[in-house]
Amino acid sequence: MADQRLPSRQENFAEWYNQIVLRAELADYAPVRGCMVVRPYGWALWENIQSALDRRFKATGHVNAAFPLFIPMSFLEREKAHVEGFSPELAVVTVGGGEELQEPLVVRPTSETIIGHMYAKWIKSYRDLPVLINLWNSVVRWELRTKLFLRTTEFYWQEGHTAHATAEEAEAETRQMLDIYADFAIKEAAVPVVRGRKSESERFAGAQRSYTIEAMMGDKRALQAGTSHNLGDNFARAFEIRYLDQENSLQYCCTTSWGLSTRFVGAIIMVHGDDKGLILPPRLAPHQIVIVPIFRNETERVEVEQALKGIEAQMSEFRCRVDWREGLTPGYKFNDWEMRGVPLRIEVGPKDVADNTVALSRRDEPGRSGKQIVSQEGLAKAVGDLLDEIQESLYQRALAFQEANTHDPKDYDAFKEVVKDGWAHSWWCGEGECEAAIKEDTKATVRCIPLEQPGGKGQCIRCAKSAEERAMFGRAY
Amino acid sequence: MADQRLPSRQENFAEWYNQIVLRAELADYAPVRGCMVVRPYGWALWENIQSALDRRFKATGHVNAAFPLFIPMSFLEREKAHVEGFSPELAVVTVGGGEELQEPLVVRPTSETIIGHMYAKWIKSYRDLPVLINLWNSVVRWELRTKLFLRTTEFYWQEGHTAHATAEEAEAETRQMLDIYADFAIKEAAVPVVRGRKSESERFAGAQRSYTIEAMMGDKRALQAGTSHNLGDNFARAFEIRYLDQENSLQYCCTTSWGLSTRFVGAIIMVHGDDKGLILPPRLAPHQIVIVPIFRNETERVEVEQALKGIEAQMSEFRCRVDWREGLTPGYKFNDWEMRGVPLRIEVGPKDVADNTVALSRRDEPGRSGKQIVSQEGLAKAVGDLLDEIQESLYQRALAFQEANTHDPKDYDAFKEVVKDGWAHSWWCGEGECEAAIKEDTKATVRCIPLEQPGGKGQCIRCAKSAEERAMFGRAY
Repeated sequence: MADQRLPSRQENFAEWYNQIVLRAELADYAPVRGCMVVRPYGWALWENIQSALDRRFKATGHVNAAFPLFIPMSFLEREKAHVEGFSPELAVVTVGGGEELQEPLVVRPTSETIIGHMYAKWIKSYRDLPVLINLWNSVVRWELRTKLFLRTTEFYWQEGHTAHATAEEAEAETRQMLDIYADFAIKEAAVPVVRGRKSESERFAGAQRSYTIEAMMGDKRALQAGTSHNLGDNFARAFEIRYLDQENSLQYCCTTSWGLSTRFVGAIIMVHGDDKGLILPPRLAPHQIVIVPIFRNETERVEVEQALKGIEAQMSEFRCRVDWREGLTPGYKFNDWEMRGVPLRIEVGPKDVADNTVALSRRDEPGRSGKQIVSQEGLAKAVGDLLDEIQESLYQRALAFQEANTHDPKDYDAFKEVVKDGWAHSWWCGEGECEAAIKEDTKATVRCIPLEQPGGKGQCIRCAKSAEERAMFGRAY
Repeated sequence: MADQRLPSRQENFAEWYNQIVLRAELADYAPVRGCMVVRPYGWALWENIQSALDRRFKATGHVNAAFPLFIPMSFLEREKAHVEGFSPELAVVTVGGGEELQEPLVVRPTSETIIGHMYAKWIKSYRDLPVLINLWNSVVRWELRTKLFLRTTEFYWQEGHTAHATAEEAEAETRQMLDIYADFAIKEAAVPVVRGRKSESERFAGAQRSYTIEAMMGDKRALQAGTSHNLGDNFARAFEIRYLDQENSLQYCCTTSWGLSTRFVGAIIMVHGDDKGLILPPRLAPHQIVIVPIFRNETERVEVEQALKGIEAQMSEFRCRVDWREGLTPGYKFNDWEMRGVPLRIEVGPKDVADNTVALSRRDEPGRSGKQIVSQEGLAKAVGDLLDEIQESLYQRALAFQEANTHDPKDYDAFKEVVKDGWAHSWWCGEGECEAAIKEDTKATVRCIPLEQPGGKGQCIRCAKSAEERAMFGRAY
């Protein structure tokens, strides 16, 4: 595969993306329309994402559990906005064990309803609260136009579902999880994000308030990379999730839900990748380092192999792979691992053996400094520092890109121009009608109303009505 | 819950099991017939099982991936034995995105067929082999009579799927994975198992040879606790999984599959539990240690809390929980954690604070030695040693039980007696007719033909024909 030219991001970003996913063997199209197979390299990346998130969830008191794949159709119907939102996307099981089912079962599109049913059974008293449960699973929402990781019928995610005694606690939880997503995106994935509130039209079906982290992709479109919803008492009322408070009176709980999915893999690809292929952030990369041995004959091969023993031992704290594949030239291997986005390459040849050195090449700025020749002594420290530097440099580059392409247009004409190829950070009246008109005019939508506001007041960028908040506008995935 | 009496294992083993699962909050019945909710305590146990297995899979070169939940019905029909085996148990999606589907989709009962389809696409040359992929997911096989963890419509498991160049390699892989399951069961779960081959009638649908680990439960019935299948070239031929060998000629691959599921949680409960509830092996227990603070007033509470800081710091390498729940007596907490099977309890009261000691109580032999008073100095070492001792003692007790209840009956009349309440290890002719007659007479089945054979020959325990192998017979879950 590596010998066919990858389309450049400039000429065709969408095709560049599709080709990278397939060539780097992150995922493949499944024989069922809309579905994907996540291949081992892509799944290893997702496992690292899972582990970075799971650590944060557990540190804030959450526990994991598993709820059934199948949900009775009648459950969805109990929350009006929820069923309206999800009905068109459902996969429905009508036959089980050879017989027509009396009540069709929905393959979960999300688990609020069945969670609601069980929480109503489990929660009796204020002593049982809060309930802080997370699920790692897959969900199904019917799609006809597949885009690997970004839009598939089945996708993998985590869904957190919590129940609280008060509205204040539920709001605090919703915000805490948004902050955890932002912290994960920035520190682990080197993906800068804008934290904000969703407009009414983009709220989760059944939520009172939805928050999001939005990231700018390499083509300047926005990707919703994680969401956190304050469900108020909507689901508690629909499913009778109630508790006896300290005065022995019956109260409805307030609940939240929050999710981050394999879409995030798409974000990592589109934020960091370049025309040579993937660039993976060191903290999440399945292989942080690849070692390519260089030799021209058996004597050299044996020498290099011997030297590699000590080098590999130093690399034990990193995710390091040695590429001993036969029948491939070093040049082919360099290209292959560059395409797969391995952050750091170590070459070891006969000269390195003689000099007690190795050659290091960074994936992120290969043009800048070329290879660095460093001593084998203290290599672990040098490599660790370099990986940290790569992680930080990827973040700074992405942040600079996002900032350079976020505009403050002076009027609606300028607004229409800038959102063709970037984001606009503009005063907005907050009205749905205005939002719809902007979308109609420009294809850009309110990505979020950022939590960080400049203060003061302004005039809506389109309708000039008084506006209390600025919104972030952009075209979205 | 803890104040209601648990039925004893003697009076009603099945009800004892059901009550423990519910009261220890391992799992609950879902609103969909046949389905279960795995609650956080049960899921934490499963996560520890996953991690112990995943470590072993990765150490032997396997990688994880994810394949779709939905499989076209036509895929199952390509392997004749496979579709016959699974057809009666399928859940079928007939509606997607609001429309009737042209081809119904099966919710995976197992993934050999869709794996076969993709492997045929990915594997081209001997250089691509072996392919060693494992999936952690859930599968669906329709059930009407639910038994939590043991028999549910949806259950959680791992399924490994490998492809090899030769039949020998496939057989070696199949046996390697069986050995990994046995090693896991013995070392991590303290569950003794018999490794063996399945008889023809109990082979996986589509396999050439199936291996199993069988464990004896507390009621002396057998539980199939993990299986490993050599699929030969059955699926390779059905899905055209072929490779070019070194002489450039096209060959069929040989494939394997192997799985271990949340059934294993049931095994742990039934092997180790007693009339007070669960007993969890320390290596898998969600909480290895529970600390119960004892105090009668606020002054004592503050003293104990202060002392606990140092003790908790020493426990950092263990999964340790401090039970500060309010409004519950220490006695209630003791019973509660005993019922939940926490291996070791530490009590700390004012006298312990004064003496710089703690009181340790083992869950596994609470009657033997009562509490042990030990110094707070070097507590981590003492606790670590004790957990190892508990782990070993649980295994030895279970092994002694299995051996004491495995018999070598002299004739068929004696056989019929012993399999009412134990296993029979007897010569068997290997014929399906004879196997069926034994089942008809006794409800016992061939659990496996153990890999360890005494050598020599004998006469079949039922039909007296010449027999080359001994089989293990018992009633099974």
